[in-house]
Order: sequence, then structure tokens, then C-alpha cells
Amino acid sequence: MKLDHIGVAVEDLDASLSAYQALGLPSSHRETVPDDQVEVAFVPFSGGRFELLQPHGVDTPVGRFLAKRGPGMHHVALAVDDIRMELQRLRDAGVRLIDAEPRRGAEGTWVAFVHPAATGGVLLELVERAAESDARG
Amino acid sequence: MKLDHIGVAVEDLDASLSAYQALGLPSSHRETVPDDQVEVAFVPFSGGRFELLQPHGVDTPVGRFLAKRGPGMHHVALAVDDIRMELQRLRDAGVRLIDAEPRRGAEGTWVAFVHPAATGGVLLELVERAAESDARG
Repeated sequence: MKLDHIGVAVEDLDASLSAYQALGLPSSHRETVPDDQVEVAFVPFSGGRFELLQPHGVDTPVGRFLAKRGPGMHHVALAVDDIRMELQRLRDAGVRLIDAEPRRGAEGTWVAFVHPAATGGVLLELVERAAESDARG
Repeated sequence: MKLDHIGVAVEDLDASLSAYQALGLPSSHRETVPDDQVEVAFVPFSGGRFELLQPHGVDTPVGRFLAKRGPGMHHVALAVDDIRMELQRLRDAGVRLIDAEPRRGAEGTWVAFVHPAATGGVLLELVERAAESDARG
């Protein structure tokens, strides 16, 4: 497994992007992910990137996270080659999953979340990209 | 800047290491970091690693984090070539720092923390390794 991104819940995407810019970390692109009810922006660093998540409202998964815990790290995403095979392997190992089946993530990826109970409190996302060449681009 | 590790606060290091092992992520080594009052264990993945942190007591920085937020992601560490130069650059850019000067981290590194206010809630650690060959080892 290889790092894909670190998800960060933010209140204000524009203000956060300015802060990362001041750190020397400019953003690449942004998009809306309807399934997750978020606007996301990516801030690359060598070997991975931050995915800043601004929720579309308070009654959304990231909105509830912000209300409960405030802005900060939300999840870690690791890239896998075959997400269905990986989910099967984890199920066989008795690992607790949030998503039994992959669903659509940002940039046309397939994603599934492992339950934080399985990782000592880390919300872990598995990501399969359509073609490895996309991830390197 | 390049990912060095993702710090995760845990209640029980042994139980957490078993959980990561079940995920297919075995640990490499563990050590005590007296300055931070923690026992740490490293769980490598391609391009980085998790640093699991078990505090030496409730009245320690990580102990207070656990009491307030529960187990989960604590910080993100990015590797830099020259930490003093990087801190100077950030100070000049008006970025709020926790550590004005580098101090000793795990594995003989020099580390300094950027304030979460500068990153939209992410506690960001800068790490300088004595020799780059160590980081690749």
C-alpha cells in the first residue's frame, strides 16, 4: 500500500489554500464530489498530497466531523491496485469496514473506507485509480 | 517537502500494532522519545509510515490529546533538507510556529512543529534527518 493523500476537514477552502500557499505548498486543482457532499482541493507534496475538504453543509459527514472535532486531519488514503481484492482480503482477516463495496471518489477513482476501530482511530480510505499512469501524472 | 510520517495517538501500542498487522501493515521498530514523553512504533507503507504514539501518562502532550480527542491522527511530518533554513523562511512568511528552534526527535532527527492555526487545523512537523541515506534505509 502506498500513500495517496491525507484528507483534511476545513471550514473555508479559500482561506486554507492561502495558508498552505504561505507554507510553500500551492494547490493543484479543485472539484466537487457529490457522493461525499464536499468541495475538495488538492495540495501536492513529494510522495502524496493533502486533500482539503469543505462540506456542503452542516448535516453532511464532513460537516458533522467539523462540528464535533473542529478543522484538522480527517482521513488517510492509501492507494491499492485492486480495491475489490483488497476488501476481500480485509474481510477475510476480520477487519471492520465502512464500505463493503467500492464507490466513486474524486477524479473517477474507486474508494472504500475501513472503520477507525480497525486502525486505532484512523479513518483509512483505500483508493483504486483507473490507470496507474493517472496517479503519476 | 516530502512526507516523512503520519503521527497517530494510540491508547495501547501493542493492541494497535496488532490491528495494523491485520491490515497487512507490519511494524518496523519502536523506541522511547524522552523529550516528547512517548513510546513510538513505526508502521511503514510505500512512501511513508505511520508513527504510533503511546503517551507516558495523562499529563503529557499526547496524553492530553487522547483525553480531549480520543485516539487518531495527531500530526503530519514532512521531511526538509535544512530545518533551520525552512524555519527562517516560514518566520519571514509570517507563519505561526510552535518551535522557534529545532529540537531532538525520534531516530536522532531534528524536528520543529508549525502551529495548527497555520494549516487549517493540521499539526505539521518538519523533520531533518542527519543523512538522507538514513531516510531511504
